[in-house]
This record gives sequence, structure tokens and C-alpha cells, in this order.
Amino acid sequence: MKIEGKTYRTIWFEDNEVKIIDQTKLPHKFIIKSLRTVEDSINAIKTMEVRGAPLIGATAAYGLVLSIIEKNDLSFLKMSGEKLISSRPTAINLKWAVDRVMRKLLGVNNKNILNTALEEAKSIVEEDIGFCKNIGLNGLKLIEEISNRKDTVNILTHCNAGWLATIDWGTATSPIYHAHQKGIKVHVWVDETRPRNQGANLTSFELNEEGISNTVITDNAGGLLMQRNKVDICIVGTDRTLSNGDVCNKVGTYLKALAAKDNNIPFYVALPSSTIDWNIKNQKQIPIEERNTEELSHIEGIDENNKVRRIRIYPKKSKSLNLAFDITPAKFVTGLITEKGICEASESGLKGLFK
Amino acid sequence: MKIEGKTYRTIWFEDNEVKIIDQTKLPHKFIIKSLRTVEDSINAIKTMEVRGAPLIGATAAYGLVLSIIEKNDLSFLKMSGEKLISSRPTAINLKWAVDRVMRKLLGVNNKNILNTALEEAKSIVEEDIGFCKNIGLNGLKLIEEISNRKDTVNILTHCNAGWLATIDWGTATSPIYHAHQKGIKVHVWVDETRPRNQGANLTSFELNEEGISNTVITDNAGGLLMQRNKVDICIVGTDRTLSNGDVCNKVGTYLKALAAKDNNIPFYVALPSSTIDWNIKNQKQIPIEERNTEELSHIEGIDENNKVRRIRIYPKKSKSLNLAFDITPAKFVTGLITEKGICEASESGLKGLFK
Repeated sequence: MKIEGKTYRTIWFEDNEVKIIDQTKLPHKFIIKSLRTVEDSINAIKTMEVRGAPLIGATAAYGLVLSIIEKNDLSFLKMSGEKLISSRPTAINLKWAVDRVMRKLLGVNNKNILNTALEEAKSIVEEDIGFCKNIGLNGLKLIEEISNRKDTVNILTHCNAGWLATIDWGTATSPIYHAHQKGIKVHVWVDETRPRNQGANLTSFELNEEGISNTVITDNAGGLLMQRNKVDICIVGTDRTLSNGDVCNKVGTYLKALAAKDNNIPFYVALPSSTIDWNIKNQKQIPIEERNTEELSHIEGIDENNKVRRIRIYPKKSKSLNLAFDITPAKFVTGLITEKGICEASESGLKGLFK
Repeated sequence: MKIEGKTYRTIWFEDNEVKIIDQTKLPHKFIIKSLRTVEDSINAIKTMEVRGAPLIGATAAYGLVLSIIEKNDLSFLKMSGEKLISSRPTAINLKWAVDRVMRKLLGVNNKNILNTALEEAKSIVEEDIGFCKNIGLNGLKLIEEISNRKDTVNILTHCNAGWLATIDWGTATSPIYHAHQKGIKVHVWVDETRPRNQGANLTSFELNEEGISNTVITDNAGGLLMQRNKVDICIVGTDRTLSNGDVCNKVGTYLKALAAKDNNIPFYVALPSSTIDWNIKNQKQIPIEERNTEELSHIEGIDENNKVRRIRIYPKKSKSLNLAFDITPAKFVTGLITEKGICEASESGLKGLFK
């Protein structure tokens, strides 16, 4: 998708380096960063220069490529894989991507190993783009249907399940981009998404760059907007979808789903099948990532001289707690938008598409 | 209540001046400010140096006193009253307090007018303190009951319905202060309350100063905490309660009430009877205050050199919308805690106590 009028992906391979957009600098600065070593890749994942399940999967796959360029040695490669997998705790895609590249390298001789790894990393990337595109085409139908009865379709989203979280198109945003490209008038309510403000910093940023009308609101405001008929449909992403249709996503998603239910507004979750967890049956088994409390108590922005500054916004004595995800029970989810079609948020719905 | 170990009220009269705590400077600086003219009072209300319905009512009453000190003249006094009433749009208490003082001055001669106005302002203040104290004693029973079956009572609150919003005790916080003084172990989950962060800036601050255990969380996190049994009871304040029990309060309250309902957690609203609106029957008739969007896109805090700084946290191109209140329908409210007792959130409940 576009930034400053030019088309980008979130990650690409060029001159034996991996290029990424440093997302910790967005929206205030747009910086392309080069990753030259596996350690660079691990660091980029850890510090969230890249984030979003599909993108960190791709970064891990390219991390193995960089590891081979650095030192074509099996034990170094294995160690790199392990370090990449453990660079963030909750992301399923990390292990999935590393395992996939490693499997491909089995029995490949030293001379071909770099090319094989690179091809597999590229195929992970292309596959994700295809998935996201199909999610968009499937979700587009929902927006189209609403546009038949009103001029502008108002869509509420939470956090960033945009192209910046994937390689291109995004998940929750892909139906929106496809609708816009088809000439349907859309307007997006962007939840700020405290504490890291991915909604304001990333979703609003990427929608602006594509020329899509959007308005940032506090996480508190969505309920009121639904009460006052200002939201036609909610579309969010997910970090993990249980086989029973329960959805684990950025904290606060559950509150919006409750409000959507109370106001009879359709609430959809967009996901590539790679985020389905077929093993866990009970949402209480999902560990909820607890992150650094400075993400709440401190914030970064631009001062009057255009300088990036970090300030403390809480009283010094105040304790805080930073929980990253919550669970939206399947009964509050109208449907799941996947690369293979839209299904009910239930075991039978998911199995109908994927088994 | 206490700040830095010393007992304060939010407003008092001393040496022909009105003293307030400048709440725009909290929590980073504790500054007592003198209001010397009616214009000072209007300004304090407008810029939210004082805020909270009961406190701005008291400030308006004292504003009339300052007006008489400035110029003992009936037409000046009337104009002062009108300006005070229109200094903020939604607060019912402003008009109520001005009308009450004005009524008292009818037929009072010039010599006694200052003393009469001052006495009435003081009586408004004392009455509010009495109301808040009784709200506390009534709500205390709910906390006591929970403490009979568990060690620490976890209470979630939204925004600041604390003593800083009133004269003393607060509304939602009064049961908490009373429980703490009775030796009951309480812990408060404090919703940050974007965009003005009154939860973090004021509620957490005042609880800290009283030595009450509290943890600031994002507005997004309350649902998850309820899902994981970390909340025993919710208590919030209100800006306006309809006679049918619908509650207009800081935006985001509704989302917490929905989550409380979904998790079978009692959700109480604490209010003095002065905030009951006996006229409006339909919540859709309540106008929702739309405030300056810079409250979202900009934020103030302390930098590494302890200097207060204001920064922009949103992309420059991003639009935003700042709606201040939402409506929690009565069906999601377990009960109303008033100065006269606890009642059902319904017309019959309220009339049972107040008519």
C-alpha cells in the first residue's frame, strides 16, 4: 500500500539485506531500516519495529536467511531459529514460520541452502499477501451490502489489523481498502487503542496515506457512537482464534463486541487461517501477555519544535497494570472473515471452511 | 481529604478570597489558587481548574460572593449570575447553585447582602459534604458485604467521581474512603479515562494521598479483568441521572456496565439527588457535549528534567472526535447509591426515596 504516494510492502529483501519500515517511529517519522544479521531481526521483533503476527512471521523467516548469509553453519542456523521463536511470547506465527523454513532446508546441500531459504521466505510473504487479498474480497461483500442502502458506510475498528501488521492489504483493513478501490464511500472510526495507540499511530496513519476518510476516537467512545447509530459494522483482527470461535485480540475488543451486540451492529473478525488455534478449547487457558507498565505511564509525541519527546503522564506514585489482550466469546462475533470465505464463529463454521 | 498528609477541601473562603486547588496542574503540581473576582471564578470553571458538578456549583455560589465584594450592585450581580450559569454547558448544578443564592438574596438589604450570600454559599458546600458522606455510608454496606467473603475487595471505577469532583469525600469514592477508614481492605482499579485521563491524574492521585491501594489500567482493560474475576464491584459517578434510571456519565461508562452485566458483577452508580433530571424521559434527548479534539491529539506530562511539556501524539493529518459522555441504560445498573439510601435504577426506585 502507499506511503507518501509511493507503494510499499512492510518487508522486502534487497542487496542481501532485509528492509523494514521502523514502526516504532510512526507516525511521526517514516524510516526504512536495514536488517543485516539475525540479531538485527530478533531485535526488530523484540522492540516492535515490526509487529503484527503475519509480519513478525515473515521477519523470522528472513532472519534465517540473514543467519545463512552471516555464517552457513547448521548449528548457528538452529540456534538462530530458537532465538527467533522466543523473541516474542504470544505470536504463533513466529514458530510456524521458522519451522516452515527449517523443514524446507532438510537435506538441502550447503550450496543451495541460501537460495532455498530465501525462496521459502518469499513464498511465506506471497502467501500472506494472497490470504489478505482474499480476506478483503470476502469482506468486501459485507460492506457492499450496506452501501446498497446508505451513502457512506461507517466501519469501526480497533488497534491495527492493517497492512502494517501484515505484508500488504492487512486483515481487518483489507475489506476497507477493497471497498475504497471499488468506489464505495467508507468512513472508518479508529479506536485510539491505548496503551500503545496503534489505532491512532498506525491505522489512522495508513488510512490517511491511502486517502480513506477516518476519525480517531478514544477507546471509550465506540459505545456511544453505536448507541447513536453512527456505526454500521465493526471489523477487527485477531491474534489467536480458538476452534470454538472465541477470539483473542488486542485488549478492549471484547468491550466493542458487547456494545455491538447491545445495539444490533454486526461485529466481524478478519483472520488468515494461520491464526486459528485448533488445540486450546477453553479461553481461560490462553495466557494473557502482561507488558511493561511504562507503555501506560509514559508516552511519546512531537513537541512544538517538531522534536520527538517522551513524557510521563501518570502520577509518580501510581502503580499500573498493562494487559495486552482480551477474549471475545464467540457468541458476540457475527462472523469470521477468512481467506476462504466468511463463516460462523463456531467449530462447525471453521471446520466447514478448513477441514 | 488529604494531600501530602494535610487535610483539604476542594474550595474554601479565606481573607475575602476563594481558594481552590488548580486541578489542571494535578497530578504533576499541587497549586492552591486564589479567586478574587467573579471573572476569576468563571475562568476557573471554563478552564476546568475546578470540575465535577458539585464543585463547579460551589464555585458559582462563591463567584456571586466575589461579585458582591467587587461591586455591591444588583445589575452587576445579575449579570455575574448569568455569566456563571453559561460558563459550562452541561452542568445542572451551575444554574441550581446560582438560583439558590439569588433566591436567598431577595429582599435582603445592601448591608447584609454579602453575609447572606456567603452563608448560603457555605451552606451549599456543607450540604454537599453531608450528601457525599451519606452516599459513602450507604455504599459502605455493599463493600462490607463483599468483605465478609473475601480478603480484599476489588472495586473498579471510571473517571473521577472523587472528592476532587465534590467538596469532600466524593461520590463513587466515598464508600471506598469509608470502607478504608473502617479497616476493610480495598483495592481500586482506576480506569485511565481518556482523553483527559481524570482517572490516572485525579482518582489515582487522590487515592494515593489517602493511602488506598489502587492500580491504573487502560479503559480497554476492565472487561478482561472482569472476565478473569478480578473485579468484585463497579462504582461510578454520574453527571445526570434520568428519572427512569438511565445514567449519563463520562464516556466509556456504558462499556464497563455492559462488561459487568456479562460477567455478573454488580454495577452501582453513586449520586447526590441534585444530579437527578426529573424532566427528560428519553436518553436520546440528552445533548452530548463535544469537546476540543486537542484533548485527544495532544497530551501533557513531565519530561526527564521534571518539566511539564505538551506534545502531539496523533499523526498531523488525522482528524478526531471528542465526545464527553455516554448513556448507560438503567437495565445495566444494579442500583443507585444516593444520600438517602440505595435504590433500584428506575422511576419507582427513585420516587421511593425522593418523592
